Amino acid sequence: MSSFFHPIRVSWVDTDAGKVVHFSNYFKFFEEAEEAFYRSLGLDFDAIEDEFGIWIPRVEAFCQYKSSARFNDLLEVEMRVSEVRDKTIRYEFVIRKRGDESIIAQGHVVAVAVDRKTGKSTQIPPILRERLSQPLVGEDVGEPSL
Amino acid sequence: MSSFFHPIRVSWVDTDAGKVVHFSNYFKFFEEAEEAFYRSLGLDFDAIEDEFGIWIPRVEAFCQYKSSARFNDLLEVEMRVSEVRDKTIRYEFVIRKRGDESIIAQGHVVAVAVDRKTGKSTQIPPILRERLSQPLVGEDVGEPSL
Amino acid sequence: MSSFFHPIRVSWVDTDAGKVVHFSNYFKFFEEAEEAFYRSLGLDFDAIEDEFGIWIPRVEAFCQYKSSARFNDLLEVEMRVSEVRDKTIRYEFVIRKRGDESIIAQGHVVAVAVDRKTGKSTQIPPILRERLSQPLVGEDVGEPSL
Amino acid sequence: MSSFFHPIRVSWVDTDAGKVVHFSNYFKFFEEAEEAFYRSLGLDFDAIEDEFGIWIPRVEAFCQYKSSARFNDLLEVEMRVSEVRDKTIRYEFVIRKRGDESIIAQGHVVAVAVDRKTGKSTQIPPILRERLSQPLVGEDVGEPSL
Repeated sequence: MSSFFHPIRVSWVDTDAGKVVHFSNYFKFFEEAEEAFYRSLGLDFDAIEDEFGIWIPRVEAFCQYKSSARFNDLLEVEMRVSEVRDKTIRYEFVIRKRGDESIIAQGHVVAVAVDRKTGKSTQIPPILRERLSQPLVGEDVGEPSL
Repeated sequence: MSSFFHPIRVSWVDTDAGKVVHFSNYFKFFEEAEEAFYRSLGLDFDAIEDEFGIWIPRVEAFCQYKSSARFNDLLEVEMRVSEVRDKTIRYEFVIRKRGDESIIAQGHVVAVAVDRKTGKSTQIPPILRERLSQPLVGEDVGEPSL
Repeated sequence: MSSFFHPIRVSWVDTDAGKVVHFSNYFKFFEEAEEAFYRSLGLDFDAIEDEFGIWIPRVEAFCQYKSSARFNDLLEVEMRVSEVRDKTIRYEFVIRKRGDESIIAQGHVVAVAVDRKTGKSTQIPPILRERLSQPLVGEDVGEPSL
Repeated sequence: MSSFFHPIRVSWVDTDAGKVVHFSNYFKFFEEAEEAFYRSLGLDFDAIEDEFGIWIPRVEAFCQYKSSARFNDLLEVEMRVSEVRDKTIRYEFVIRKRGDESIIAQGHVVAVAVDRKTGKSTQIPPILRERLSQPLVGEDVGEPSL
């Protein structure tokens, strides 16, 4: 699958007293890119979860920090759905400053489909599996807002 | 009503690149004190909301910043229920460093009872009104955890 | 002064167990709009603070909540510099869903110039005062990223 | 090294619209335990960093989510310094509900000493290495505040 790109502007609140983005916030940036990705697919994640009586919580999150981001930096999250298995989806993320090759942070997140009634893991809905296996039809290439 | 005190230790994530607590986090500190207050009363806020078919969202929040708090500071939130009206509850907050008279931040929050079905404001449940008008029976006076 | 508009997409992390945006996050939305506003002016706030040996912390923040915002909502923050006094700047904010007239939240923030050495309030730098008194030259009108 | 335990009460703001703690907040809980651990040792991390002209940023963070935590839950973070190498420190974390054996989340964080001038990795200061290799002298066993 090709990559999806999502811009993120570092806000003051994202920083900590070390004058860099707090390490936990990169996970928010990962998630924000994932949300933009699903909007770009025109998939209503919530509706799909409701229809199939499931939810798809994260079971694993990982990030390596290579460099720092600072207030007002314009970042770009590159995201890829690297694996869709029977019950799990795996996303890979790389964060750079826009226009810069060097990596600030990279990591992955794994989510699993869970039946709401039984609380047990279950199948990823076919509609989701199909869409995630297709080439990207939407891409977040517009200029970021200021 | 007498005051309720709740200790809060400033974490690294609460700070921003100015090396002080981010202004938005004082509202979290207000809320954390309010939550401790309700636990001290033995009132299950959620259960009360469910029983009466309401929720009690905030309609107003205000904070004045007099000084700064920094990483590792041990703060104390003084909280008071200053007014219980027909449909609203008003909380006042003062934040100081423990053992220090000078004020770091102070403000208030107003919450209103809302009927879940109609979406309109409604009566504060009597059980809540009664408990809030009594002198404090619990108080968060224990040593804060490290 | 005319209004400045800044779009904000509600992320999952902005919500709370009430399924709406947590009340403290509206202050982050206010700040994000303010940051976009200064970028639109081409003013480097940090550089100005360094040049004049000051910082301009918030001394007051206020928000009224009229309605709720939810996951994936596209909000628009309308911001106005309503007053530039000798030592203070006051910003007014109104948050709506894009394309919807009804107000979700509105409030204000007051910031004061503080001399870094003395810790006392001081003059807003003339360069900042001048630019804030001019009509807006930049405006954040582009489409929000997805 | 023996384990260090730190209690954390789940606040409303920690939750998301799924009515559970947002996955990114477990990294904050990890960090809060780590901060309490260093306070228990009587080590001023900031002072050590200043004395040696270094900082010790995180280079890796990982979490597996086994179950969910909800508003008002009283959690306990078990933390262990699992490895102190030449330039890195590794912390392991397990989060449970207090009084419950089952694991909600577990993970690790790796931090590396970095020379502030050169930006290159450098030795963990001996004073830190020595203290981290000793048995725990302090432990956060007190009752959590309400």
